[in-house]
Formats: sequence, structure tokens, C-alpha cells
Amino acid sequence: MVDLEDVRAAAKLIAGRTVRTPLVPWPDDRNLWLKPESLQPTGAFKLRGALNAVAAVPANERARGVVTHSSGNHGRAIAWAAREYGVPAAVVMPDNSPRVKVDGVRALGAEVIMVPAAEREVRVAALQAERGMTVVPPFDDEAIIAGQGTVGLEIAEDLADVGTVLVPVGGGGLISGVAVAVKALVPGVRVVGVEPELAGDLAEGFAAGRRTEWDPALTARTVADGLRGAAVGVANWAHIAELVDDVVTVDEDAILAAMARIATGARIVAEPSGAVAAAAYWELPGVASGPTVAVVSGGNVTPSLLARTIT
Amino acid sequence: MVDLEDVRAAAKLIAGRTVRTPLVPWPDDRNLWLKPESLQPTGAFKLRGALNAVAAVPANERARGVVTHSSGNHGRAIAWAAREYGVPAAVVMPDNSPRVKVDGVRALGAEVIMVPAAEREVRVAALQAERGMTVVPPFDDEAIIAGQGTVGLEIAEDLADVGTVLVPVGGGGLISGVAVAVKALVPGVRVVGVEPELAGDLAEGFAAGRRTEWDPALTARTVADGLRGAAVGVANWAHIAELVDDVVTVDEDAILAAMARIATGARIVAEPSGAVAAAAYWELPGVASGPTVAVVSGGNVTPSLLARTIT
Repeated sequence: MVDLEDVRAAAKLIAGRTVRTPLVPWPDDRNLWLKPESLQPTGAFKLRGALNAVAAVPANERARGVVTHSSGNHGRAIAWAAREYGVPAAVVMPDNSPRVKVDGVRALGAEVIMVPAAEREVRVAALQAERGMTVVPPFDDEAIIAGQGTVGLEIAEDLADVGTVLVPVGGGGLISGVAVAVKALVPGVRVVGVEPELAGDLAEGFAAGRRTEWDPALTARTVADGLRGAAVGVANWAHIAELVDDVVTVDEDAILAAMARIATGARIVAEPSGAVAAAAYWELPGVASGPTVAVVSGGNVTPSLLARTIT
Repeated sequence: MVDLEDVRAAAKLIAGRTVRTPLVPWPDDRNLWLKPESLQPTGAFKLRGALNAVAAVPANERARGVVTHSSGNHGRAIAWAAREYGVPAAVVMPDNSPRVKVDGVRALGAEVIMVPAAEREVRVAALQAERGMTVVPPFDDEAIIAGQGTVGLEIAEDLADVGTVLVPVGGGGLISGVAVAVKALVPGVRVVGVEPELAGDLAEGFAAGRRTEWDPALTARTVADGLRGAAVGVANWAHIAELVDDVVTVDEDAILAAMARIATGARIVAEPSGAVAAAAYWELPGVASGPTVAVVSGGNVTPSLLARTIT
């Protein structure tokens, strides 16, 4: 299990390489703040974990490079972190990834390999075997979890009496790390995971008390492309089962409505995945109590979708 | 003249009532950072000055209220600050103000009075005479300048070797305060004002060495509705003449292109006025040297304009 000291160590390492995002108060609601991870230079919180994980690759393995699979934001983050440390990177991406995310990875100098979603892990293993690359998993990894946990550390620093933290859940890296940090620092805080209904594998599994996997063909239906993972990771499940208070779901209309509301009300560009936590706050009465932070996990949305949503 | 100590005092007063905005690095350019004042709860930097100025109204005058004129963002800020301190507020707005800005002021409980742009100051004076309200000017005021200067204080704290600060100019409140703070703290820093070509009164006046006024019918042409003021204030001119290094202009196409680029590249919603500084960075070779901060002064843009711009 990752602990608070791991998160604090990650915070030291990533300081100056990431944006210290503020809590942005919602104009008409004194109980709601957004944490805009969309402001990270790669457009999502994933940079925190990637910087922490690539830094952990031993010096004598760096020249052979790092490889990962990702729906986009983790890939871009790994590409950025690898460039930061002068390490070659390859990113295996599902062939239904939005163009904006694919282009973002390529622009940072990483090699992009597009495959059907179900073949991602096999291809990563092949690159590891053939080229001796080090695998940096997108979420099921302690260095990744500790890095993402710095989001929670900052929330606790900025809002010491936070009552509820709402966190988007795909593979569970973000919520695992956030829960480690805020549960250690804020007595009585509730941590609630939010998924799209169409990718509600964790909501189902959390209710049943066991890690649950969905068919990727099902999770691929949601507009929230960052949350299409078929299951949370094994390490993530361990953290979630111990630390998370609840997991809820929101429908597609609520996600898009929240995306528009965040853009026009708080002037923050959220991608659909980044809007689910705020969507839960607005759509599900009782999901939050006390001062509440909704993590806006990323903002890499296709411009035409953003435009359609806000008009 | 406002000095660094005035700005530091304002910073203490507004801490916890404003967002401590981060510097957001531009993904593909290691020399450019944005300062997203669009994240303030009223959507613009104006809240800083308004909080400082309303706090300065003597206790025995507060019950009669405060009054101001504004193209929108200052009005919203005064309404917010007045609500914060429990003071009634009236805001006189030009009748060509965008709907989103008028609604924003009304939603905070302030009285809105719409008049032709040229009649704004007369109407404010009438309210002062008839109701005994205290006038809080939008820019030509030392408390306002000191409050806006906190933007510069934060830039100097976050980027100690900043080489150039690019600042949108309407009435000159923001650039006056920013120049006071950064010139006192960063040796050799350049402060450059940016206006729309269609509202280039200060660029013309700065070149000529005297405060210059344009016909409001001319400045009203620009899409950057926050920068339609016909001239900088008298106090502002004094600060600008002493502290500012240059004033440049950008055309309407450059403003809209920058707005789109900021939304898609940095995931920040800028209004046209908020995009002019970055527009100058991208359009005018040589305008900046060294590490550069472009202040994104606000984000209160009509959704349909934002949508049209990004697609």
C-alpha cells in the first residue's frame, strides 16, 4: 500500500515540473470548489504520476526507453516525462482514441502505436520483450498512485476542512492516491469515486465488494474516453476497498451538461472524463456533504465537441 | 503613486477571497507562461482591485452603498466585493455590453443601470449626488491599482527571472499595478501593454508621450469589449509613463485566433480582452524577451463566440 510519505516524496520530486493547481470556487455555491488538473501542461493530472514513475526507472535501463498503453492522457504524460528525463518513449493507444490525444503524444516526440483496445497489453509486453523497454503502467503501480496522490495533498493543504472529495475513476490511479493523502490528513473526509454509467465497472464491484471487470466493448460506449478502462487495477482495488467511501455513476447527458457548465461558469475547459465529478455533485442529491472538491481530471477535449456542448 | 507596500497590503487583504492563480506553462514553448485571471470567481482580475477598494470605504458610508460604471468585469467584481462586505451596489453599464456580463452582475444582487457608453460617468455622478453612494472607479484610483498589482506580485513570486510581462490595457488599472510590483521586484523586467488596434488610444499616446483620448464610437468597434475604454485614467497614465516599457496593438483576427489557441492549447477560457497579451506574443516578433508571462485578464466570453472561434 502507498502511504502519505510516498505521496510527500512524490510531491517534492514533481514540484516545479507540474502546475500547483488552485482550488477554484464555484461562483454561485459556497460549498463547491473545482481542482483544475486540466491546467497541467499535458492537460491532465496524469503528468504527476508519470513524472514520479519515470524518475524511478533505474539509470542503466533508461537508454532502452519506457513503454506504456493509454487512452491518451497517460500516454501524453509519459511522453512529456520521458522528454523531461531524456528517455525514449513508446505509447500504445487504442484505435478509437480522439485525434487530439494522439497528436498530443506525437508532438512530444514519442512513438505512437495504434491497436484495437483489447490488444493494448499484449503489444506493450511485446515491446518490453523485443526492445528491453521498461513498462510504466497507466494506473496499477505504486509510483503512479503516489504521484497522483499529490492532488489530494494539495486539496488538504488548501481546504483543511474539506468534507467530500469527488474523483473521476477509470483505472483508479487518481482516486487511490487522493484517498491515501486526504484520509491521512483530514479527519472525517469522504472520498467518492465517480464513473460514467456506461463504464460503471467499479460502481458495480464496489457494491459487491470485489474487483469487477467489464467487457471493453461496453466501456467503450461512453463519451468519457479517459474512463473507458474495463476495470480498476489490482493495486488500485486494494486502496479503494480500504479507503474509498462510495462510488457513484452519472449518465452521458449529465457529463456533457457538466462539461458545458464548467466551461461557461468557471471558465475551465474540461474533457468529458474531467467533468464527471462535478456532474455527480450537480445531479446526485446527497452525494456530497460539507465543503466539496470536484477534481477536474483533464481538459483534452476535441474542440468541435466542446463547441457543440456550450451552444 | 502607488508603491510596492500598497500592493503588499492589498495582497494581505484579498488573500483567501481571490484565487491565487498559477503560472500555466505553454506546452510547446519553454519561454511562455499564461497567468489565468479567468479563474477568479467573477471571471476576471478585477475582483482584486474591487475587494481592495470596497474595503477602503469608511464604515459610516457603507450603508448608502457603492456605485461604479463598467463594461462588465469591474461591475461584476464590485457586486461580488459589495456582497462580501454586506454593502449595497449599483453598476452603470454601457448598453452594448454582452448579455453574459450583465447577467453576471445581476446574479450577485447588484442593481444594473444600462445607458449609452458616453453617458456612463454622468449617471454615476447622479447616483452619487442623489443617494450618497460612494463611487468606486473602474481603474483611475489608487486602491484599485494597488489591488490589481497583486497580479504582478504573484508573477514575481512564481517566476523570479521573468523577462517580459505582457498586459492587456483598457483603462490601465491592471498594467499600472503590475508594473509597480514587478519593476520593484525583478531587475531588468520589461512591462509591455497590449491593446486592440481598434482601441489603440494608449499605443498612440505612449508614442506621443501624452495621455490620449479616442472617441468611444471608435473603441466600441473591437470585439474585446473589456478594452473599449476611450482612454487610460489620469493616475494610470502617470504610472504607465514612468514604468511601462512599450505599448503594442493586435488586430481583431489575432485576438480571436489567440482566444482559440488558449482554449485548445492551454484549456483556459479567455474572453477576447483576455487574449490580447498572448496574441501579441504570437503575432509580434521581438515583443518579448526572456521568460515571458502573458496575463489572461478574464474569461467572460459569450459561449456562442467561443464555440465559433474554436471550430
